[in-house]
Amino acid sequence: SVLDKTYEGNGDDLPKVTQVMVPPPMLPKFDQVENGGPKVILVTFTVEEKKIEVAPNDSIWAFTYNGTVPGPMIVAHQGDFVELTLKNPATNTQMHNIDFHAATGAMGGGDVSLVNPGQEVTFRFRCTRAGVFVYHCAPGGLMVPIHVTAGMNGAIMVLPKDGLKDENGNPVTFDRAYYIAQQDFYFPKDKDGKTENFATVQQSIQALGESIKTLKPTNIVFNGKQGALLGPNALKAKVGEKVLFITSDANNDTRMHLIGGHADLYWPGGKFSNKPFTDFETWEVPGGSAAAVLYRFREPGTYALLDHNLIEAFAYGAVAQVKVEGKWDSSLMKVVRKQSPLQ
Amino acid sequence: SVLDKTYEGNGDDLPKVTQVMVPPPMLPKFDQVENGGPKVILVTFTVEEKKIEVAPNDSIWAFTYNGTVPGPMIVAHQGDFVELTLKNPATNTQMHNIDFHAATGAMGGGDVSLVNPGQEVTFRFRCTRAGVFVYHCAPGGLMVPIHVTAGMNGAIMVLPKDGLKDENGNPVTFDRAYYIAQQDFYFPKDKDGKTENFATVQQSIQALGESIKTLKPTNIVFNGKQGALLGPNALKAKVGEKVLFITSDANNDTRMHLIGGHADLYWPGGKFSNKPFTDFETWEVPGGSAAAVLYRFREPGTYALLDHNLIEAFAYGAVAQVKVEGKWDSSLMKVVRKQSPLQ
Amino acid sequence: SVLDKTYEGNGDDLPKVTQVMVPPPMLPKFDQVENGGPKVILVTFTVEEKKIEVAPNDSIWAFTYNGTVPGPMIVAHQGDFVELTLKNPATNTQMHNIDFHAATGAMGGGDVSLVNPGQEVTFRFRCTRAGVFVYHCAPGGLMVPIHVTAGMNGAIMVLPKDGLKDENGNPVTFDRAYYIAQQDFYFPKDKDGKTENFATVQQSIQALGESIKTLKPTNIVFNGKQGALLGPNALKAKVGEKVLFITSDANNDTRMHLIGGHADLYWPGGKFSNKPFTDFETWEVPGGSAAAVLYRFREPGTYALLDHNLIEAFAYGAVAQVKVEGKWDSSLMKVVRKQSPLQ
Ligand SMILES: [Cu+2]
Ligand SMILES: [Cu+2]
Ligand SMILES: [Cu+2]
Ligand SMILES: [Cu+2]
Ligand SMILES: [Cu+2]
Ligand SMILES: [Cu+2]
Ligand SMILES: [Mg+2]
Ligand SMILES: [Mg+2]
Ligand SMILES: [Mg+2]
Ligand SMILES: [Mg+2]
Ligand SMILES: [Mg+2]
Ligand SMILES: [Mg+2]
Ligand SMILES: [Mg+2]
Ligand SMILES: [Mg+2]
Ligand SMILES: [Mg+2]
Repeated sequence: SVLDKTYEGNGDDLPKVTQVMVPPPMLPKFDQVENGGPKVILVTFTVEEKKIEVAPNDSIWAFTYNGTVPGPMIVAHQGDFVELTLKNPATNTQMHNIDFHAATGAMGGGDVSLVNPGQEVTFRFRCTRAGVFVYHCAPGGLMVPIHVTAGMNGAIMVLPKDGLKDENGNPVTFDRAYYIAQQDFYFPKDKDGKTENFATVQQSIQALGESIKTLKPTNIVFNGKQGALLGPNALKAKVGEKVLFITSDANNDTRMHLIGGHADLYWPGGKFSNKPFTDFETWEVPGGSAAAVLYRFREPGTYALLDHNLIEAFAYGAVAQVKVEGKWDSSLMKVVRKQSPLQ
Repeated sequence: SVLDKTYEGNGDDLPKVTQVMVPPPMLPKFDQVENGGPKVILVTFTVEEKKIEVAPNDSIWAFTYNGTVPGPMIVAHQGDFVELTLKNPATNTQMHNIDFHAATGAMGGGDVSLVNPGQEVTFRFRCTRAGVFVYHCAPGGLMVPIHVTAGMNGAIMVLPKDGLKDENGNPVTFDRAYYIAQQDFYFPKDKDGKTENFATVQQSIQALGESIKTLKPTNIVFNGKQGALLGPNALKAKVGEKVLFITSDANNDTRMHLIGGHADLYWPGGKFSNKPFTDFETWEVPGGSAAAVLYRFREPGTYALLDHNLIEAFAYGAVAQVKVEGKWDSSLMKVVRKQSPLQ
Repeated sequence: SVLDKTYEGNGDDLPKVTQVMVPPPMLPKFDQVENGGPKVILVTFTVEEKKIEVAPNDSIWAFTYNGTVPGPMIVAHQGDFVELTLKNPATNTQMHNIDFHAATGAMGGGDVSLVNPGQEVTFRFRCTRAGVFVYHCAPGGLMVPIHVTAGMNGAIMVLPKDGLKDENGNPVTFDRAYYIAQQDFYFPKDKDGKTENFATVQQSIQALGESIKTLKPTNIVFNGKQGALLGPNALKAKVGEKVLFITSDANNDTRMHLIGGHADLYWPGGKFSNKPFTDFETWEVPGGSAAAVLYRFREPGTYALLDHNLIEAFAYGAVAQVKVEGKWDSSLMKVVRKQSPLQ
């Protein structure tokens, strides 16, 4: 049982490999099946406090790892260590840290990684469990939801050494992988209902301390900005390709749906040690977790990937697109008679 | 794996069978185990825009398939095609279409089925996956949540060719099946808090565009109307019968519970290719999905089937009843001492 | 299949054992593997209506079983009967009853257990299904959510006769077990936003009838009081111990997370007949259900157990602590370079 696993060594003697972070929805370079033995993956996150425009007239002092909402995806194999260096530039104003749901002990690293502006810290944790997991800032008290809903969260994927398995236990690979995070924002509003435009981080934080208490987001978007994955920024795929969608929400519940597609494979709780479910129309991502879904595209076209609370999707911003090239397969769908006058 | 399935033929050469739609909670006639090979199931949906009373003093310009909220349940077997004709009478005012979560490609059919008043369209899709799936109108943008929360959604059940299997993989049949859909309404209110009574569909739509943004329903009901499945309209069953409950919610999360009963079998995500769970007290239906639960009634009486957010059930309307006839079995429950003065 | 089980006897001839209730998070004395054959477990619940302080300046006329929120955990083995005596002292003002999600028929017992002040009732039900299940008061109509959100709920654990099994089907035991219930309160507020302090239960109930309709809790706490499981009241464990966490929410959705820990084993829906999932970072508890998670602590320290809607945790009160003693294991996490000036 997973209950009985034991471990040796703290990683000091393992080979070290630097993983270059890239902005979501892309993932860094990685092998689906482990190539070589366990290693220490070196990752650097630099905290950026900066104003971002989430929607027209809705800007926020965002807190970010490496400048993006969500932060970059890390990819490891089960048994690897992640060695994270967290840098908090002196130009920042707040203390920050990082809590990895993939890590064991010390508040997921939060207890050992709190850095003041001008400081950095390096710690290492073993990836004992396979799956996709959230990470986020957790500086304590009300600062936890404030920093997380100001954008300071992301995910790590820990692959099994021998890669993913399908519902029959057979190896399965994917052709592309995308990371999509739903972010709930709680923009403070002035008395006319307009989003407040704060001059300083400190003012913003104070107001967020009140606005989050509504429990009702003002904006719910994918990858930090309304339309971040729409139109020219849509995700891409080809008919026949198997695409791994990693979806996370660090705070509030999400129900992900790919219009016209399905979850061929959906790992319960996003954890790869469990047999994947098949055929899901909608997969839920409870707040504070991540999910992984593998889908093979069978038809070309522009797909929508959204939160199937359709109000969240179309009135709050939680919608992305996937543009899929290829040839139409009429064995799956066929128009028998086009739009015509009523008979 | 489900990832590797391939298909031949577009259904042109298969036998065609018309399925006569019936209003929920009832299902059309169907075989639990497929009788004969694959076929094309012909279904006609006529869109009706009409005012319905959801609760006393709460009426809405509803958008419906065939006049009911939810729309009729379609039943197919895996491998069948559904050939849907969607008719939008000239007396309607809006464009409508249909997106089947059971279909693959073209936005589940939404891309090929948009019809103006006075038009009809016919398209066909293959039921490649077994399970219960939502369908709904999706005319684009804010119209998607507006039409869906105005009632325009329903479900299809795709049965495995050889019928359902229990938790041990053995065939299992059911004696009755009911379809219950939770519907969230967002009634626009006047300045006195009373539900607005709009003269025209256009006025209603404009107001709904605002009221849905609250994300807080004003009414949450089963099958379109407070009390639709209560008292004289309660569902019926007999002790010893196995009843399949198909539950859906096209938009917001639901937690279904049968008071005094259980989910003997509950298929994860409502998808029959997965091994059913047993013994669930409450099964969740994330917004935009459907669930299937099989229960054998052991005791007579009036059961309540409700959303176990008990506020939604008792203050918003999300409660139904099942009246079960039979003989009491004291091996399951026995009153030892009736209500008596305290000792 | 579970569908086919039949039962004999109504418990009259079985040995009777009194189970002494204890306040949560503790559990009564029990055997993990059944010791002897089936029995009748005698339990007494006395309803207490009393004012409790949930948070500073937030007091409510709570409705409780045996004086605590949640009510006491009952523990049985599959096949046992629970024989409950419900006492409603004459000093109370309301009718109360109890609905066990673990029971079959008669609204889970609600139909046969309604007692006026000054009355008591005794009934018995067979624990046919293994798992953790919610119980709560359900006196009918709007009184159901009012009583439940005034604290009147708890849980029962029905263990398999031969104890729990891990993900491989092998027996697994635990060293400690804790019961944590999330409670949503809807405090009526005066026109200045302050919590109303009602002189009588009747006034409180009337106001709750309105305030619950917001669907937005004013307080979300574990075990009845903000901080009930924090600091000196934190849960305790030791490195190497396997701890069973039983978590419930009788009304609204919850997403439980143990910071720095995981669900080694998590039983879907909290029902032990199903194979447990492994490695979950966050386990969801849909309103009206309970969950069971087994975790072996590997590192010492103070863990937080919370609702990972972090606003609910840090702004509403849904956070507990687990203090774990032992020796740090650097094979899981190691600080490589402490907080230092930026390089
Ligand atoms: Cu931070
Ligand atoms: Cu977290
Ligand atoms: Cu429509
Ligand atoms: Cu949909
Ligand atoms: Cu009560
Ligand atoms: Cu209940
Ligand atoms: Mg490696
Ligand atoms: Mg979300
Ligand atoms: Mg949920
Ligand atoms: Mg057929
Ligand atoms: Mg939910
Ligand atoms: Mg719902
Ligand atoms: Mg026993
Ligand atoms: Mg929820
Ligand atoms: Mg909750």
